[in-house]
Amino acid sequence: MGQEGFTAQKRGSSALPTSTAPNGGSRSGRSLLRGGGNRQIHKTLNNIKITILCGLVTILVLRGTIGFGSLASDNDLDNQAIIEETNRILAEIRSDKDPDDPEDNQDQSLLNLNDTYSLGAKISNWDEERSLWLTRNQDFPNTVNGKARILLVTGSPPNPCDNAIGDHYLLKSIKNKIDYCRIHGIEIVYNMAHLDKELAGYWAKLPLIRRLMLSHPEVEWIWWMDSDALFTDMVFEIPLSKYKDHNMVIHGYPDLLFNQKSWIALNTGSFLFRNCQWSLDLLDEWAPMGPKGPVREEAGKILTANLKGRPAFEADDQSALIYLLITKTEWMSKVFVENSYFLHGYWAGLVDRYEEMMEKYHPGLGDERWPFVTHFVGCKPCGSYGDYPVQRCLSSMERAFNFADNQVLKLYGFRHRGLLSPKIKRIRNETVTPLEYVDQFDIRHSAQETSN
Amino acid sequence: MGQEGFTAQKRGSSALPTSTAPNGGSRSGRSLLRGGGNRQIHKTLNNIKITILCGLVTILVLRGTIGFGSLASDNDLDNQAIIEETNRILAEIRSDKDPDDPEDNQDQSLLNLNDTYSLGAKISNWDEERSLWLTRNQDFPNTVNGKARILLVTGSPPNPCDNAIGDHYLLKSIKNKIDYCRIHGIEIVYNMAHLDKELAGYWAKLPLIRRLMLSHPEVEWIWWMDSDALFTDMVFEIPLSKYKDHNMVIHGYPDLLFNQKSWIALNTGSFLFRNCQWSLDLLDEWAPMGPKGPVREEAGKILTANLKGRPAFEADDQSALIYLLITKTEWMSKVFVENSYFLHGYWAGLVDRYEEMMEKYHPGLGDERWPFVTHFVGCKPCGSYGDYPVQRCLSSMERAFNFADNQVLKLYGFRHRGLLSPKIKRIRNETVTPLEYVDQFDIRHSAQETSN
Repeated sequence: MGQEGFTAQKRGSSALPTSTAPNGGSRSGRSLLRGGGNRQIHKTLNNIKITILCGLVTILVLRGTIGFGSLASDNDLDNQAIIEETNRILAEIRSDKDPDDPEDNQDQSLLNLNDTYSLGAKISNWDEERSLWLTRNQDFPNTVNGKARILLVTGSPPNPCDNAIGDHYLLKSIKNKIDYCRIHGIEIVYNMAHLDKELAGYWAKLPLIRRLMLSHPEVEWIWWMDSDALFTDMVFEIPLSKYKDHNMVIHGYPDLLFNQKSWIALNTGSFLFRNCQWSLDLLDEWAPMGPKGPVREEAGKILTANLKGRPAFEADDQSALIYLLITKTEWMSKVFVENSYFLHGYWAGLVDRYEEMMEKYHPGLGDERWPFVTHFVGCKPCGSYGDYPVQRCLSSMERAFNFADNQVLKLYGFRHRGLLSPKIKRIRNETVTPLEYVDQFDIRHSAQETSN
Repeated sequence: MGQEGFTAQKRGSSALPTSTAPNGGSRSGRSLLRGGGNRQIHKTLNNIKITILCGLVTILVLRGTIGFGSLASDNDLDNQAIIEETNRILAEIRSDKDPDDPEDNQDQSLLNLNDTYSLGAKISNWDEERSLWLTRNQDFPNTVNGKARILLVTGSPPNPCDNAIGDHYLLKSIKNKIDYCRIHGIEIVYNMAHLDKELAGYWAKLPLIRRLMLSHPEVEWIWWMDSDALFTDMVFEIPLSKYKDHNMVIHGYPDLLFNQKSWIALNTGSFLFRNCQWSLDLLDEWAPMGPKGPVREEAGKILTANLKGRPAFEADDQSALIYLLITKTEWMSKVFVENSYFLHGYWAGLVDRYEEMMEKYHPGLGDERWPFVTHFVGCKPCGSYGDYPVQRCLSSMERAFNFADNQVLKLYGFRHRGLLSPKIKRIRNETVTPLEYVDQFDIRHSAQETSN
């Protein structure tokens, strides 16, 4: 269009610039009209172009905003529908209120600093009562195959994990525990309920342990184990006879505890409590820093001020226990601080060495050569944000799981193709005399021989 | 712009139409030039407008396609990053190949129709061998507390579910089984490995059951239970003495089986196999329709042709078993087709009646009044597409889970606030004499009294 104007200029006449008029030179009134008409058309065409473009822009913006999805694939739409449906029903489930329940409709009042908190009615004669009960209930002895009866307690919140992969690893974790406990005659309670509104989160184990002690007098030891802790030595057994004069067994380091007052001197991710009066009393002493709200907040400040390396956050059960034991040292006479084997084994220093362990050592050692428990502290696969990179955690948990699973599958003649692989392969040929392998490879038979 | 042209037309002179020229009337050569310049500017402005619009369209299209996310919130980006990271490591895990393993690198050849498939080396003297072994291993009797030893077997694939909520319900399902089995002294094996490439999917239970029989001679009954089946009667016990002359116990209806030849006459989601030669032989007879590929496809056609109501799809283990038992009826002498209680209870007719059941009946009945097992056939929470609406399935599974959990929590003094609620509430006050409730509410004590 610019070119025509220039051409007109060059002519230097009064000729009107034309674009499409076939008779280039005539200058009648009719030409003037036709030229005006052409410009009209031109402008109209421009307007139409701009209108179409604006319309297209509007459609695209709308699509981006409301998912006006004519361009989405059917599969994506289906998946989206499933996810939305799932989230909707879950939200309904999570928000469930019972209209007949006055408790549900009260404001959730938080404990004030001056209120006293109690785990439950004060019991003072548990040892006698329990002893009497055991005498009267010979069918429910506190021993299993000559060993003290242990109840392993673990759990997770009742709602799905924030991160989908979290539920998958909770599943693998409980399978791992089922395997260990089946081999060693240990019962499991998997808790998914909050027994006490005040003591939620990591504190929830306190009311749970207390309730289980009082409801299972036949149980001699209650063993709390975090959901992010895996058994990695399927042969090792806790040397209970070592603790005949103690009531609590917990992994830690006395130097870190008493000299350094470190907030990680002990680990409450895996510990044992004897079912007795002393334990009930300790739980009562331990609990007061737990009630959520101002109590837990203030307690957190005390703990941060007194424990080395502790960041500022609300009181957690582990710091509270450490603080309790270093300030009221009379409790220590019955607490065994164990570090000769990994009742709790911090994962980062262990997971890369599994192949080396398989090459040099064997199950049953329970220590740094073949860790009893590998504990994925800080990984938090169930939550949104862990303290470590996601890939590092997931692949490490996968390795630990398979490292342990290999020890279980050995009886059946299989092992994993690699520590990252869900696939398994044979390590023995089929046989018409399978029982010789049972005698050789069933861990319980080796355990039996060791104790005889 | 149209208006100006009209005005010029009206003047009826040779005056050039102008838009911005201040001196409206002069008709010099300079006016001509200026008018030409104005048109130039006009056209240029139009071009610029259209160019900008096109650019905007391009950006929006690109954003929709590659997620050029300057408009996404930080949270969304974080979540997206976590999901992508998770999927990446999982894909790595799933694709793991062992370069040293020739098996892993072979083409996965499918069994041809003429090939014979075998579960393993043919064993013919299992009863004698097992009996001898039991005699020699008195520490591993085939009874527990006077009852035949049962091993409950269940499982799920090693990879995370397609649908995230699936892993959460697998977790709840295994917790439910842990509770029942703890109360009743039953051991659990949770399988997450494919023992036999050929028999994957629903057929995977066959090589698994066989392997467990041969590796656990101390086990009298192997009880297979699907991961989508929940215990809903925590008191009921399988009346094993009823089956002293049988080797297989399976829920079903003889009329549907022999007269109607229905493909749902029996349900292989929950059944028991005695650990004996007969069972090994039946497994060998059952397996041949299972190998994936042409064998399973062709077998599927035979089953669809012969079983009433069966849709067209590859052979499944349930249809294959039904077909086997109606064509080789000699096996039936040792098969107990049970329907006096819900060893398998189809969920749709049960889940809406739980409140009615709680009002009218009590645990221990195991039948339509208080179903032993509620089985969520067709819900497939782990996969992408079930046969029922997602909401119906999820809320029903939640109700069944809580209905069962209430029976477990009763010992501890709690129940769920409602069948859809993860929250619990007290049903008894705290007490200083907890043991009276143990005697009253521990299911094992009632079971003991019943058998005495």
